[in-house]
Amino acid sequence: MNKIFTALVFIGVPLSVVGTFMHWSSILLFIIYCITIIALASFMGRATESLAVVAGPRIGGLLNATFGNAVELIISIFALKEGLIGVVLASLTGSVLGNLLLVAGLSFFVGGLKYKRQSFNVFDARHNSGLLMFGVIVAFVIPEIFTKTMTKNDTLNFSVGISIILITLYLAALFFKLVTHRGVYLTDDKNESRNHEEEPEWGTRKALIILALATLAVAYVSENLVHTFESVGEAFGWSELFIGVVIVAIVGNAAEHATAIIMAYKNKMDIAVEIAVGSTLQVAMFVAPLLVLLSLMFPVAMPLVFTLPELITMVTAALLMITISNDGETNWFEGATLLAAYFIMGIGFYLL
Amino acid sequence: MNKIFTALVFIGVPLSVVGTFMHWSSILLFIIYCITIIALASFMGRATESLAVVAGPRIGGLLNATFGNAVELIISIFALKEGLIGVVLASLTGSVLGNLLLVAGLSFFVGGLKYKRQSFNVFDARHNSGLLMFGVIVAFVIPEIFTKTMTKNDTLNFSVGISIILITLYLAALFFKLVTHRGVYLTDDKNESRNHEEEPEWGTRKALIILALATLAVAYVSENLVHTFESVGEAFGWSELFIGVVIVAIVGNAAEHATAIIMAYKNKMDIAVEIAVGSTLQVAMFVAPLLVLLSLMFPVAMPLVFTLPELITMVTAALLMITISNDGETNWFEGATLLAAYFIMGIGFYLL
Amino acid sequence: MNKIFTALVFIGVPLSVVGTFMHWSSILLFIIYCITIIALASFMGRATESLAVVAGPRIGGLLNATFGNAVELIISIFALKEGLIGVVLASLTGSVLGNLLLVAGLSFFVGGLKYKRQSFNVFDARHNSGLLMFGVIVAFVIPEIFTKTMTKNDTLNFSVGISIILITLYLAALFFKLVTHRGVYLTDDKNESRNHEEEPEWGTRKALIILALATLAVAYVSENLVHTFESVGEAFGWSELFIGVVIVAIVGNAAEHATAIIMAYKNKMDIAVEIAVGSTLQVAMFVAPLLVLLSLMFPVAMPLVFTLPELITMVTAALLMITISNDGETNWFEGATLLAAYFIMGIGFYLL
Repeated sequence: MNKIFTALVFIGVPLSVVGTFMHWSSILLFIIYCITIIALASFMGRATESLAVVAGPRIGGLLNATFGNAVELIISIFALKEGLIGVVLASLTGSVLGNLLLVAGLSFFVGGLKYKRQSFNVFDARHNSGLLMFGVIVAFVIPEIFTKTMTKNDTLNFSVGISIILITLYLAALFFKLVTHRGVYLTDDKNESRNHEEEPEWGTRKALIILALATLAVAYVSENLVHTFESVGEAFGWSELFIGVVIVAIVGNAAEHATAIIMAYKNKMDIAVEIAVGSTLQVAMFVAPLLVLLSLMFPVAMPLVFTLPELITMVTAALLMITISNDGETNWFEGATLLAAYFIMGIGFYLL
Repeated sequence: MNKIFTALVFIGVPLSVVGTFMHWSSILLFIIYCITIIALASFMGRATESLAVVAGPRIGGLLNATFGNAVELIISIFALKEGLIGVVLASLTGSVLGNLLLVAGLSFFVGGLKYKRQSFNVFDARHNSGLLMFGVIVAFVIPEIFTKTMTKNDTLNFSVGISIILITLYLAALFFKLVTHRGVYLTDDKNESRNHEEEPEWGTRKALIILALATLAVAYVSENLVHTFESVGEAFGWSELFIGVVIVAIVGNAAEHATAIIMAYKNKMDIAVEIAVGSTLQVAMFVAPLLVLLSLMFPVAMPLVFTLPELITMVTAALLMITISNDGETNWFEGATLLAAYFIMGIGFYLL
Repeated sequence: MNKIFTALVFIGVPLSVVGTFMHWSSILLFIIYCITIIALASFMGRATESLAVVAGPRIGGLLNATFGNAVELIISIFALKEGLIGVVLASLTGSVLGNLLLVAGLSFFVGGLKYKRQSFNVFDARHNSGLLMFGVIVAFVIPEIFTKTMTKNDTLNFSVGISIILITLYLAALFFKLVTHRGVYLTDDKNESRNHEEEPEWGTRKALIILALATLAVAYVSENLVHTFESVGEAFGWSELFIGVVIVAIVGNAAEHATAIIMAYKNKMDIAVEIAVGSTLQVAMFVAPLLVLLSLMFPVAMPLVFTLPELITMVTAALLMITISNDGETNWFEGATLLAAYFIMGIGFYLL
């Protein structure tokens, strides 16, 4: 797997550079960019992981939290710069749906084909449920309703206020998990055994260099990727919404998706759920509000107001995940249910 | 009880035939039709039960699933043929509300008057909660929002897509329950003791003949019943919506209602809940999408788009049931809460 | 604490009387009124508590339920008399939000700073979850949707019907808790130890006199307070909605807030939750419908139809509390989550 990604990076990056200068067809470039980003993302993931192991669980947790959605953040920043607010909100929606339904669904399904019942820490499940309810439902639904009669300026002020509260609570959640309540809710000795395995793949220096180079490359490719959206959309009959919700979301999270499913297949459901639900919470409570705040520096500011289809899919996805995960157990049918919800939403966004 | 139903069938069917030919007053015919269908439905239920016992639990489960809502399906098909899409959607809503709130409410209440605390399999409760969230909330709310801006054709395509996904997941749920995870989530030895009691009431042949005859009779009476809706609505000042949500739903499910309450009174809460929540899921995930697909053969196709009052009552009813049933325990007050919700909705549909 | 409140009563009541006659500035009077009501409310609370101890748990529970929200009820009745329906609905919303998010949030947070994990009766939590789902979600959302196309008269009829059902179910809940299922769901011997402490602070006669006098004084001050809303709103740029949701709600519930937080700090989470969630249920299922019924005697009748922002904040707050409290455990982070939700809503109402 890693070898394939290495090959893809060493082929994809030069091709991206050459293709951009040669003005190849948008569709070809779009495909090259997407594959290159997926391959680069896997390098960023491995570099972050190596640093996290060395830094210890507290700083490591912070690192993972910050770099876990770095690719998405970078793509989104370039889209913001172009004023493509619709694409950014759509790709945030797509990340939430992709993680909650596609990643978790595939993990539960694939894991469930091998094991009849799989379990994960029920306290984590409940902690995550509360955050999903807060981050996806309270913090996204309320601005939708309140800003209907607000001026543009108040809408933006409200969005900034909510964003600051979201980021603050997200940092508080990290503090809770990594400092005040670290190890309080353990149900068994999994934690210990997990520590044994952890050895950094790369030294700190190598990891830092790879992380920096991969991030730069991602930034370069992302900027170009954003420019292909319009022609690709026209060529395939895809709306801006569909590109954001489905394509960008899958490209931005592909590396994580693979890891989660592998972990589920190895019956390490705690990690699989942490990736799927943890990523969702990162996007909703950290990436989305951060982009709102960053957008203030760009010509067009982005309010935290999704379209109604985006909002409703995120809300129903969160409710479904809360209901399904609340007992700390999974099976193949729960995975199938999440996947079925993803298909319904996918068809909907395609037809919209 | 069975004798009364037998008498009602032998009086009601001839009366229905004679009355139809003699063009009796619509209101009188409406009452005769309703009572006859209720009596015929009890025969269909007993015939299905007998076949299910002989066929063993797997095929038996399938039979129950298919014939459990046969009466409703038949009435709905005749209503579809007349283009009464509003009545069909309303009666689907009424079935969901009637099963989730009225049947379950009465079961919990009546059972709770005799026993302080009654319990049922908590794993089934959670499994059902996930399906309610998917079938009633994800699959019904999303088309409501997405189709607002869609063309009529896309709305229908989306409805067909969702219907296929719903039926597929419903079959997967049966496969999960009857094949891959049969007996996996048992909490005690109830299953065994239940098997002892099961002896078919009728032989296979007799059951098949009764099932065929009763189904034919239901079809005949249902077709005529549908024609009385208009005059009955005018006479009593009932809207199409009220007839569908309250009257058709109660007539179509009367036999099941009685069984569920008797089971609760005997402290067999697993069966009572299976009838109430299981029927809801059948309607939402099998009958409703099947009617959407069947409607493609009729002059007016039916999209899976409910009116807002229908949708909101189903969503809140599902949320209330999920919250109340999630601990696998019931008492009289939980029953009273469900009934109170049903009354609120009933008044609402009456005033609408 | 009690001494401060006594001083405030003996200073505040005369100041209120003098200030009203002298026509002091509205803003000064507004502040005096608010502080006086808070101080008087603490006396009413202590008097009710004393009576409750003497009367035994059953009648005591009824007394607490009736007088617990007396101050709010009185302020609301005077606002209704003035035709300020918007303020009344807003202050009901504010009470629900204040109790569910601010009181419970502060209790969980403050208690959680001292104790890593605090627990309360999980059966009560589930019972309350069911009632929140019914009282806040079913009973408030349905009229919102149904009355959109109803005539004014039907809207009122529907509101009256729902109100009667709500009050009936609320009384049934008391009957369930105090009579049929008293002590059925105890998890430990907390109940016993709690009884030991209970000695009435005041004799029955003294308590009755204080309760009567304080109620009269609250009524007098409330009537005048209502008249200051308009000028205060203009002076500070607050909307009627903001005054109702934030100011009236905090003033009307200040005494209870203090008690809940103190209880949480003493690790008596059962009482803290009972105050926070119990008060919410009182407001939603008893005070709100009672005001609808009482409003029939006033020139302008009040339907049970909130504005969309009011409704959505209550619904999301209820969902958040149900998710967070369902395991019968709390920690500081759960408190922080509830507080964060309150801040988002507060900013929203301020900007609206």
